[in-house]
Amino acid sequence: MALPNHDLTARGEGSAGDVLGTYLRAQATAFLRGLRLHEEWGSPRPESGGGADAAQSSGAARSLRGAARRISCSLATFRGVTESSWADGLRTELVWLSSTLADEHAYAARLTRLLDALHRLSGSPEVPAPRGAAGALTVGSARAGALLERQLTLARTRAHSATLQALGSSRFHAVADAVAVLASEVPLDPVAARGRVDEVLVPLADVAHTRLAAAVSALPHAGESQPYNAEHDGSWHEVRRLLRVHRYAREALGEDVARLAAAGEALDRHRDASEAAAASATAARTPRIAPATAYALGVLHADQRHEVEAARFTFQDLWQPVPAAAP
Amino acid sequence: MALPNHDLTARGEGSAGDVLGTYLRAQATAFLRGLRLHEEWGSPRPESGGGADAAQSSGAARSLRGAARRISCSLATFRGVTESSWADGLRTELVWLSSTLADEHAYAARLTRLLDALHRLSGSPEVPAPRGAAGALTVGSARAGALLERQLTLARTRAHSATLQALGSSRFHAVADAVAVLASEVPLDPVAARGRVDEVLVPLADVAHTRLAAAVSALPHAGESQPYNAEHDGSWHEVRRLLRVHRYAREALGEDVARLAAAGEALDRHRDASEAAAASATAARTPRIAPATAYALGVLHADQRHEVEAARFTFQDLWQPVPAAAP
Repeated sequence: MALPNHDLTARGEGSAGDVLGTYLRAQATAFLRGLRLHEEWGSPRPESGGGADAAQSSGAARSLRGAARRISCSLATFRGVTESSWADGLRTELVWLSSTLADEHAYAARLTRLLDALHRLSGSPEVPAPRGAAGALTVGSARAGALLERQLTLARTRAHSATLQALGSSRFHAVADAVAVLASEVPLDPVAARGRVDEVLVPLADVAHTRLAAAVSALPHAGESQPYNAEHDGSWHEVRRLLRVHRYAREALGEDVARLAAAGEALDRHRDASEAAAASATAARTPRIAPATAYALGVLHADQRHEVEAARFTFQDLWQPVPAAAP
Repeated sequence: MALPNHDLTARGEGSAGDVLGTYLRAQATAFLRGLRLHEEWGSPRPESGGGADAAQSSGAARSLRGAARRISCSLATFRGVTESSWADGLRTELVWLSSTLADEHAYAARLTRLLDALHRLSGSPEVPAPRGAAGALTVGSARAGALLERQLTLARTRAHSATLQALGSSRFHAVADAVAVLASEVPLDPVAARGRVDEVLVPLADVAHTRLAAAVSALPHAGESQPYNAEHDGSWHEVRRLLRVHRYAREALGEDVARLAAAGEALDRHRDASEAAAASATAARTPRIAPATAYALGVLHADQRHEVEAARFTFQDLWQPVPAAAP
């Protein structure tokens, strides 16, 4: 992680503006490419199922979201190196866009995660149900799966409509125009942009690192937390957000972020399992469901909370030993 | 484990009959003392709750069961060193007695385990219920607890009656008389008993070890098993039984069995969690329960199945590296 692999920083060349500008232009280009692909492959309706087109489309949407996040995080971390009022405006719009785009994907992924878990929990159908456990689960898990599918597909359809509406809005076209400008020219602060990378960008990136480190050290110890209690999830989601900001700052500096990406994946799994557990609890409060359905949802909830715990341990393993302070 | 601490074997003195006789007489004495204490403190009715008397009484019952198990396992392992027909008869009766005595304890322990888990799962009452999860659990866990309490207290009361009936039976008095004889004189096979410990007892103990090692190596790998699937529990319960036989054989030879006792505790936890998970699944099939109750029982079931998994990992950790072949 301490080895810079970016040409400019590796050779110690380039001003802060050069390095940040190169990164932002590259991300703006990725955004526009993602957008073009997304328009080309269309946005399949949730009920159309997954085919090659759906895979292409969701890949395009993913790279669109990734580029939007990288631009908005960089504009936050390195705000003072850019024209600040422009940066603040674009950042707000990109946060709106990426959260709108994320919703549909999140509902689809959540449903897949829950149905996969139900399938795993109820065991393979060839195996005769052993005493008690699996038998009761098999009864309820089909109905629990149908209930979750109904609820999450409805949510996903709503998110799909919201995405289509957003992509057709003048607000979106203004964002796309701003990113198109960014792809050729980054509005920079003339003084800060002329500074050296290690005097201008590195201290700003270090601020992001310090915030992350503080949030990580404030996390409750894994052993202390109650697996089924979602009380601490918020602090973990905040660490996930700060890790992303930190990771993209290091990426902009041309550093190797493989370890940070792996730690981020653990926190993504943490978030996904936490949301899936909540979706299972919500489904269990549907009026007039059969006890067997509620039972299966309870098992599913506990299973996902255990995935939450496992993701926390994975993160702690990847995070320890605490990395040396930024170079 | 390889260091004998028994006086006779440590000095290499004593025949097979001396060593086995000393062990069996000591266990018979422990049995009679446990029986006397049990009669003295009485057998409290399940609804009388736990006080000092109940603790004394259950301690007495525990030592009574432990001595009965040690005698019956030793009579099986070292059958050829004793008068075989006598050994077979007494062993059958002791197995009957210890399984009868174990039932009441098992139901009480299972209820405690399940209520503790429910308490843990629904979180501490001071903490306001966070989004979804804990809220739904709190609703159902009180009712789930009441349902389990009703079902397991009923089972325990039946087991209590069965114990009282057994302790008052002529069958029991015959066992107690046989153990009283054993406390002063062990019926041995005159030829085998004169043999050396390492030529007679050690090879028989090694057979118990070989059986255990074969059963352990036949266990499915921990990673392969499905946590919610009770299908493999039987193989683990069999390992638990064989580990006990092995442990008592080593104990009779005067060896240190601390490691075996710790591994046995992990398997006890495995069995307890497996039975508790099954009890939760059974309770969830009670007709006309509320969905919230079924949901809490589902969470509880999954929690106990995770304890099953954890106990398997603990056992594997304690068991590896595979101990060297018996000395």
